[in-house]
Amino acid sequence: MSFRIEHDTMGEVQVPADKYWGAQTERSRNNFKIGPEGSMPKEIIHAFGYLKKAAALANTELGVLSAEKADLIAKACDEIIAGQLDDQFPLVIWQTGSGTQSNMNGNEVIANRAHVINGGALADDKKVLHPNDDVNKSQSSNDTYPTAMHIAAYKLTVENTIPGLEKLRNTLAKKVEEFSSIVKTGRTHFMDATPLTLGQEFSGYVQQIDNSIRAIKNALVMVAELALGGTAVGTGLNTPKGYDVLVAKKIADLTGLPFVTAPNKFEALAAHDAMVELSGALKRTAVALMKVANDVRMLSSGPRCGIGEIVIPDNEPGSSIMPGKVNPTQPEALTMVCAQVIGNDVAVSVGGMSGHFELNVFKPLIAANVLQSARLIGDACVSFTDKCAEGITANLPEIEKHLQNSLMLVTALNPHVGYENAAKIAKKAHKENKTLKAAAVELGLLTNEQFDEWVRPEDMVGSFK
Amino acid sequence: MSFRIEHDTMGEVQVPADKYWGAQTERSRNNFKIGPEGSMPKEIIHAFGYLKKAAALANTELGVLSAEKADLIAKACDEIIAGQLDDQFPLVIWQTGSGTQSNMNGNEVIANRAHVINGGALADDKKVLHPNDDVNKSQSSNDTYPTAMHIAAYKLTVENTIPGLEKLRNTLAKKVEEFSSIVKTGRTHFMDATPLTLGQEFSGYVQQIDNSIRAIKNALVMVAELALGGTAVGTGLNTPKGYDVLVAKKIADLTGLPFVTAPNKFEALAAHDAMVELSGALKRTAVALMKVANDVRMLSSGPRCGIGEIVIPDNEPGSSIMPGKVNPTQPEALTMVCAQVIGNDVAVSVGGMSGHFELNVFKPLIAANVLQSARLIGDACVSFTDKCAEGITANLPEIEKHLQNSLMLVTALNPHVGYENAAKIAKKAHKENKTLKAAAVELGLLTNEQFDEWVRPEDMVGSFK
Amino acid sequence: MSFRIEHDTMGEVQVPADKYWGAQTERSRNNFKIGPEGSMPKEIIHAFGYLKKAAALANTELGVLSAEKADLIAKACDEIIAGQLDDQFPLVIWQTGSGTQSNMNGNEVIANRAHVINGGALADDKKVLHPNDDVNKSQSSNDTYPTAMHIAAYKLTVENTIPGLEKLRNTLAKKVEEFSSIVKTGRTHFMDATPLTLGQEFSGYVQQIDNSIRAIKNALVMVAELALGGTAVGTGLNTPKGYDVLVAKKIADLTGLPFVTAPNKFEALAAHDAMVELSGALKRTAVALMKVANDVRMLSSGPRCGIGEIVIPDNEPGSSIMPGKVNPTQPEALTMVCAQVIGNDVAVSVGGMSGHFELNVFKPLIAANVLQSARLIGDACVSFTDKCAEGITANLPEIEKHLQNSLMLVTALNPHVGYENAAKIAKKAHKENKTLKAAAVELGLLTNEQFDEWVRPEDMVGSFK
Amino acid sequence: MSFRIEHDTMGEVQVPADKYWGAQTERSRNNFKIGPEGSMPKEIIHAFGYLKKAAALANTELGVLSAEKADLIAKACDEIIAGQLDDQFPLVIWQTGSGTQSNMNGNEVIANRAHVINGGALADDKKVLHPNDDVNKSQSSNDTYPTAMHIAAYKLTVENTIPGLEKLRNTLAKKVEEFSSIVKTGRTHFMDATPLTLGQEFSGYVQQIDNSIRAIKNALVMVAELALGGTAVGTGLNTPKGYDVLVAKKIADLTGLPFVTAPNKFEALAAHDAMVELSGALKRTAVALMKVANDVRMLSSGPRCGIGEIVIPDNEPGSSIMPGKVNPTQPEALTMVCAQVIGNDVAVSVGGMSGHFELNVFKPLIAANVLQSARLIGDACVSFTDKCAEGITANLPEIEKHLQNSLMLVTALNPHVGYENAAKIAKKAHKENKTLKAAAVELGLLTNEQFDEWVRPEDMVGSFK
Repeated sequence: MSFRIEHDTMGEVQVPADKYWGAQTERSRNNFKIGPEGSMPKEIIHAFGYLKKAAALANTELGVLSAEKADLIAKACDEIIAGQLDDQFPLVIWQTGSGTQSNMNGNEVIANRAHVINGGALADDKKVLHPNDDVNKSQSSNDTYPTAMHIAAYKLTVENTIPGLEKLRNTLAKKVEEFSSIVKTGRTHFMDATPLTLGQEFSGYVQQIDNSIRAIKNALVMVAELALGGTAVGTGLNTPKGYDVLVAKKIADLTGLPFVTAPNKFEALAAHDAMVELSGALKRTAVALMKVANDVRMLSSGPRCGIGEIVIPDNEPGSSIMPGKVNPTQPEALTMVCAQVIGNDVAVSVGGMSGHFELNVFKPLIAANVLQSARLIGDACVSFTDKCAEGITANLPEIEKHLQNSLMLVTALNPHVGYENAAKIAKKAHKENKTLKAAAVELGLLTNEQFDEWVRPEDMVGSFK
Repeated sequence: MSFRIEHDTMGEVQVPADKYWGAQTERSRNNFKIGPEGSMPKEIIHAFGYLKKAAALANTELGVLSAEKADLIAKACDEIIAGQLDDQFPLVIWQTGSGTQSNMNGNEVIANRAHVINGGALADDKKVLHPNDDVNKSQSSNDTYPTAMHIAAYKLTVENTIPGLEKLRNTLAKKVEEFSSIVKTGRTHFMDATPLTLGQEFSGYVQQIDNSIRAIKNALVMVAELALGGTAVGTGLNTPKGYDVLVAKKIADLTGLPFVTAPNKFEALAAHDAMVELSGALKRTAVALMKVANDVRMLSSGPRCGIGEIVIPDNEPGSSIMPGKVNPTQPEALTMVCAQVIGNDVAVSVGGMSGHFELNVFKPLIAANVLQSARLIGDACVSFTDKCAEGITANLPEIEKHLQNSLMLVTALNPHVGYENAAKIAKKAHKENKTLKAAAVELGLLTNEQFDEWVRPEDMVGSFK
Repeated sequence: MSFRIEHDTMGEVQVPADKYWGAQTERSRNNFKIGPEGSMPKEIIHAFGYLKKAAALANTELGVLSAEKADLIAKACDEIIAGQLDDQFPLVIWQTGSGTQSNMNGNEVIANRAHVINGGALADDKKVLHPNDDVNKSQSSNDTYPTAMHIAAYKLTVENTIPGLEKLRNTLAKKVEEFSSIVKTGRTHFMDATPLTLGQEFSGYVQQIDNSIRAIKNALVMVAELALGGTAVGTGLNTPKGYDVLVAKKIADLTGLPFVTAPNKFEALAAHDAMVELSGALKRTAVALMKVANDVRMLSSGPRCGIGEIVIPDNEPGSSIMPGKVNPTQPEALTMVCAQVIGNDVAVSVGGMSGHFELNVFKPLIAANVLQSARLIGDACVSFTDKCAEGITANLPEIEKHLQNSLMLVTALNPHVGYENAAKIAKKAHKENKTLKAAAVELGLLTNEQFDEWVRPEDMVGSFK
Repeated sequence: MSFRIEHDTMGEVQVPADKYWGAQTERSRNNFKIGPEGSMPKEIIHAFGYLKKAAALANTELGVLSAEKADLIAKACDEIIAGQLDDQFPLVIWQTGSGTQSNMNGNEVIANRAHVINGGALADDKKVLHPNDDVNKSQSSNDTYPTAMHIAAYKLTVENTIPGLEKLRNTLAKKVEEFSSIVKTGRTHFMDATPLTLGQEFSGYVQQIDNSIRAIKNALVMVAELALGGTAVGTGLNTPKGYDVLVAKKIADLTGLPFVTAPNKFEALAAHDAMVELSGALKRTAVALMKVANDVRMLSSGPRCGIGEIVIPDNEPGSSIMPGKVNPTQPEALTMVCAQVIGNDVAVSVGGMSGHFELNVFKPLIAANVLQSARLIGDACVSFTDKCAEGITANLPEIEKHLQNSLMLVTALNPHVGYENAAKIAKKAHKENKTLKAAAVELGLLTNEQFDEWVRPEDMVGSFK
C-alpha cells in the first residue's frame, strides 16, 4: 500500500495514499481497534453531510466564509449524503466519547474531497480548504456530533421506524374488520375466560401500536432541537451572531424536517435526554410489540397440540430434523428485536446519565444504540407485516370448538343466579366433565330454556369494537 | 387471637375476628408469604376507595344498584380514601398477577365495614352487602386493578413527583439568575475548556428538569385513560350501557383529575403500556437528575483537593472517623434514587412485555415499581432542594483561580491566529508551565496588547443565558 | 412528645426522650424524608449487631478497649441481633451513600442502650460509652457498612435463598421420578415437536435450579470477604495490628459463616463488585425461574381451551367476576418476583459502577436491592413449592390425546425414508387432516406394519433422563 | 446476476449461481431483511465449522456416515474455520429464534462446497452430500445452534476477553509497584479524605480485575457444556448410542478447549442460563472497568483546573475547536464499551427468560450480545492498556500540593485527642483557612512538636499494599 504524509497539531501521520481522510482520522484508526472497523453508523456519516453543508451555507450568509469555499464544501457534502463516500469513514463507535474523531473524519474528507473536486490532488501540500478553520468553522465536535445524532435519529425514525409501525398497524386494522364477527373464547391468566371476537382481540394490538407511534412522535419534538451553535461548551464562542438559528433553518431546509435550534445549548451538549427519551419511546414500543408478537405466536401454536386459533403463513421449512414443521419465525425475529431494543435502552440510560459538567462523552454509544433500535423496529415491522401479519387467517373449527367448550360462559349467569351459584355450576361441570347446561340444570338453578336464552356467546362480546 | 368464620366459593376460612377482611383476603395472606406483609402500595388501596365509590354511584345512576347500597359503599370508601382502613389491607405485591386478591380485599373490607356502619356486626351471618354481587358489581379484577393503578399513579405523579421537580427547577432557576455574571472555566471530558458563567451551567439543569416534566406530562395523557367498564376480558360483559364513560366521569369528579374511559378496553387490560411509558418518563427524569446531582457533587468537591467551585450546606457530620468532614449527602441520596428508578424501569418493562391474550398478569409488580419511582423522585427532589440546592453558593476565589489558569482561553485566538497556531501557544504554555500570554508573545504570534484585547473570558461566554 | 438534648460535632439536637438513638440519627431523620420511614433493611441492622460486637471483642483482645466496655457493647449488640431494638433504627435507604448515618445510628443506639443496661439513664449527661471513640473504635462507616452489607447478604442467601431454591429443586426432582414414564408431545417454537417424557421436561427445570444454586455459591465466595479493618480509605488507619484478620474471625465465629478479611481493602471500600456479582447470580436465577414458572403456567392452561397437560392445585377463587375460575397464581407471583430481581440487578449495576476514588457511595441502594432479591427468591420458591409444585399432577388424557395427534412423530421416519419423504408425509397429513400412518401409506412410502414398528413414541424419548 | 435453481421441502428457489448456499438460506435472506445483511456473528459461523466436522467424525466412528462423506465434510469445514467462506453466510441475527436457518446455511454451504471440492459443479442436479441427511446427520438446529453458541463464546472469551483483561491487570500491577511509595490524599464522597499511596489506589483496580477474571472463569464452566446430541427436543432422537459424549470429545479435540456433553440436554436446549451467566460475568466486569476508567479519567483531569494527580498519554488532538486540548479518550472508549455490555446483559436476560417448553427461541439474539460483549471488553482492554494505562505517570507536584493541604490528616489525631476535638481542629482550620497545625495549637489541644510527631502522612497509609 502507498501512503502520503498528512499532519495535524501533533505532527505527521502516514495515510493511505488514495483515501480522503487525514491525520486525525488515521490516528483514531490506530488508537481504537475495538470491534469491527467502520462501526460508526452510516446514518451519522450522512447526517454530517447535511450538517457541514448547512454550516458552510450559514457561515457564508453571515459573512465568515467565502461563497467559493462554501460551494466546494457543499459539493463534497452532497456526495456524503448520497452515500458515495461511505468507505472514507473507517472509524468505530468506541472512540472519543464526544465523537470528535468522526467530526474530524468528516472535516478531513470534505476538505480533501473538495480539493480534488476543485482540481487539486490529494498529495498536494497546500489544500484549498482547512479541515478546522474552514469546514469546521463556527463548530466544535461538542455541538456537531449531537446535532448529527439528532438529524440521524429523527430522519431514521420518520423514514423507517414510524412507516414500519404504521404498515403493521394498518394491516392489523384490516384484520380487526375481517375478524369482527368471529366470536372466540377469551383467555386471562392463560386460562379460559369469557368470550370476545377475534377482531376485538386484534383491536388491542392496533391500539398498542397507535399509542406507540404517538409516544415516539412526542419524543421527536425534542430530538428536533439541535445543539449546533453551542460550539465548545454551549456559549457559542467563535460563532457569528444569529448563526444557531440560521444553521438549524438550513438543516431543516436541506432535510425537509422541522429542525430548530435548541433553546439551551448547555443542556444540548452536556445531556442527551432527548435521545434517552426517544430510546425510551422505542423501548415502550418494543414492550408493546413483544405482546403482539407473542400473542400471534401462541394463538397460532399447534398445529394439533396447541391453541391453534389462527393460521400464519409458512415461509420456510421450520426444522432441520422434524420434517414438515412450520414455525412462527417472523414473530420470533420480532421478539428478538424487541429484546434488543429493551437492552439498548439500558445502555442509552447508562450513557445518558454519565455526562459531567459541560459535556456528555457517551455520544457515539448513545447514537449507535438509538439508531439500531429505530432501524430494527422499522425493518422488523415491515418483515413481520409482509411475511406474517398480512397472511393471518382464522382457524374457525378450532375457535368454535374452544368456544363451545369454555366453562367461562357461565359468567353470563352472574346477573341471573348470582356469583356463588354460577361458581357452583362451573365447578360441577369441570369436576364431572359435563357441559355447563347439564350442570346448571342438574343443580336446579335454571331450566334448559333459560340457559339457552342467557348464555349466548355472541351476546357476551359487548359493544366495544 | 379469636376468629370468625367467613366463606367464599371454595369453602370456609377462619379470619381474625376483629378484621374487616374476609375469606379471600385471608386465603391470600396464607398463600403468599413473600416479603414483608402489607407491601401492596397504600396508594393502590386508596385508589380502590375512589374506584369502588365511583362504581357504586354509576351503578345506582344506571339503575343496577340501590341508592341505599351505594350510600353504604360510599361511606366505607370514604374511610379507605382517608387512610383510616389501611391496616385492613394486609396483602403483598407478590400475589395473583391480576391483583384479584387486592380487589377482593377491597370488596370484602367495604362489604364488612359497610355492614358495621349500617349497625351490623362482623360476626353476623347475613350481611347487608355481598362483596362480589354488590361491591364488585359491573367490575372485574381485570378492569379494577389497572384502573386503581392508573388512579394511584396519576395522583401521585401530579401531587408528589411533578411538584417536587418544579420545586427543584425553581430553586435552580433562582441560582441561574444569582450566578449569571460569574464567569468560570468550562470542563469537557472532565478537562479544562472554554469559559461560561456559573449561571449558564445551572441553566442546563433547569432545561433538563423542564424537559423531564414535559415528558412526564406527555405520559400522563395515557395514564388518564381508565380500563373500568371492560370487566373480565374487555368486552364490558355484565355492565349496564354507558357505564364505562359514566364511571370514568365519576372518578374524575371524585379525584378532580382528568380521567376518561380508555378508548380500547382490550388494550387496557392486556397491556400496560401507559404505565411502561410513565415509568420510561420517570427513568428519563432519573437520567437527567443523575447528571445534575453528580455535577453538584463534583463542583463542590474538596474542600482543598477537589474542584470546589461551589459550596453546599453542611447538614450533618460527614464521617464516623474523619472529624470535620462534610459530604455531599443530598446528591448521594438523589443519585441512589435515580439508580433505583432506572432499575425499576427494567422491572416494569419485563412485566409490561409479558401480557398474554386478554390479560397482563404483572399488574402489582408494575404498579409497585412505578409508584415507588414516582414517590422517590418527588421526595428526593424536595429533600435535595431544601437541604442542598437552596443553600448552594459560589466559591468565588476558587472559580477565579481556575479561570485565570485555564489554557483553554486560547480558543479565543482561533479567529485571529488560526487553530494550529493557537494550539502551539497552548502546548508551549502547558509544557513550560507558563501563562498563555507569555507563550503567545514568545512565539511571536501576537503582542501583549493584542492578547489582552482578544482573550477576555467575559467576552467568551456569549449571549446564551 | 418529650425530648432530650443530644449533641454531636455540629451542635445540639432534640431527640425523642425515650429513643436510644442520638444526634446524628435524628439529623438524618430530618434531612432525608424520602419514601417510607425505616426502610433501611432489617438484615443490615442485625448485621451491624454482629459487626459491632465482633469489633469490640477484637479491640479488647488487641488491647485498645477495656473488657468492661466490650462487654457492654456486646450486650447491646445481642439485643440488636435478636431484633429487639428494630424500632430504634428509623433511617431510610436514601441517605448518605456510605451508609454513615446508619453506622452512627448503630453506634448511638449501642452506646445509649449499653448505658442503660449499665444502670444509667438516657437523660444522663455523661455516658459510659462514646459512640465514636468506643463503639466505632477501629472502624469507619466506609468499612463497617460494606461489612454489614456482606454479612447480611451472605446470611440471607444461605438461610433463605438457597434453602428455598433447594426445596423447589427437590420437589421438582420428585416429579421427575413420578413422571418418568409419561410420554408426551414435545413443543419447540410453541409448536408440536417430537415426544419426550414429562419427567424429562421437569428434569430440565431441576438442572436449571442446580446450576443457579451453584452460581449463587460461586458468588458467595467473594461476599465472604469483609472490608472491616480498612477504615476510612482502605489503609486501616487507626486500627491495631492484626485487627482486620481477627475481627473477620470474630464475625465468622459469631455467625457460624466462613467470613474472612478481604485481600484488598481499597477494592472492598471503593467497589462493590462482590454484591454486583451476587446480584447477577440472583438475576440469573430469576431468568431460570421465569422459564420454569412460565412452563408450569402454560402446561396447566385451560381447563378446556389450553394445553392442559398438567393440573396445579386450586388455592383460591380465581376471578372476581368469572365464577369457578382457577388461575395459576403461584407461578404469577413467582414470575413477578423474577421481573423484580431482573430490574433490581440493573439498579445494582448502576450503583456498582458509580464508585469514585476510595469509596463507592451507592452502598445502601446496593444492599437494599440485593437483599430484596435474595429475600423474594427464597420466599417465592417456598410459596411456589408448597402451594403449587408439590401438588402438580399429570393430566393423562390430555397428554395422550396430544401425543397421538402430533404430526412430529414423523421424525422417527427420517432414518428410514429420508428427511424429504418424511416431510411429504407430514405435510399431506396436515393438509388433508389425516393421521401420519394413513398419509404415509397412501404415499406408498411404507406399510402399515412398518409404520407401527418405526413410529413408537415410547422409543423416541431416548435414554436421557 | 445469474441464478441456479435449488429446492427444499417447500419447493424451488432461485439462488445466485456462484454462491454455495442453497434454498433455505436464500429463503431466509428474502424473508428477513432486518438490519444490515450478514449480521450473524462470524464467530458463530466458524464454530459451526468445528461442530459440523466433529459431528461427521463422530457419525463415521459410530458407523452411521461413510468415511468418504465425513472426509468431504471435514474439508469444507476446515475452510469455514479458516474464515475462507465467510461471504457464504449472508443471514442476519433477526431470523428464526432457533437459528435454524443459519444451521441450514452451514449445511447447505458444506454440502455444496464439498461437492465442488469433490470435483462436482454447483449446477449439478445430484450432489454428493445431502444437507440434512448427511451434513446435519444426528443433529437438529435445536442442538447445533446452542452448541455453536457455546463454542464461539468459550473460544472468544479465552482468546480475546481474558487475555485483554490480563494484559490490563498486569500493566496496572506494574503501576502498583511503581507508585508504591507515592503518598497522596484519599478521596471519599469525592471529598478529601485520609491519605494512601497511589500504588494502593491502583491495587484496588488490580483486585477488581482479578475478581472479574475469576467470575468469568466460573461462568465458563457451564459454557463448556454442549447441547449437541440432544437433537430436536433433548431426547437425542435419531442419534447413535454414545454420540453425545463422543461428539463433545471431538469438538474438544478440534478446538483444544475443555468441552463436554451437557449433563441434561433438555435444559441445554430450552434454557440458555449458561450464556446468561457468562453475560452476567461480563457485565460484572464492565461494572468493575467502569470504576477503573472513571478514576483514571478523573485523576488525570485538568491540566490546571482539575484533580490532575496522574498524567495520561496524548494520543490525538483532543478538540476540533479548543487548540492544544488533550482528552482522556481511551477511558471514554472503555466506559462506552462498559455501558454497552451492561445494556447487552439486559437483552440477554430478556431473551434468556423467554424460553418455552423444549426450546428457547432467542438464541441468535443471546449469541450476538454475549459475543459482542466479550469482543468489546477484550479489545477495549488492549486498547486502553496500550494507549493509556502503560503510559500513566504520577504528577508529583500536584499530589504533594493536595496532600499537604488536606484537612483530613486530622484523622491521625483521633487516638490522641478524641474524635470531637479533632473535629474542632479541622473545622477551625477550614473556616479560618489555616493549616491544621496552626488551628490545633491555637486551640491548645497539642504542641507543634506533637503535631509533627502524630500527623505524618507516610505513617497513615498502613501496611496494606
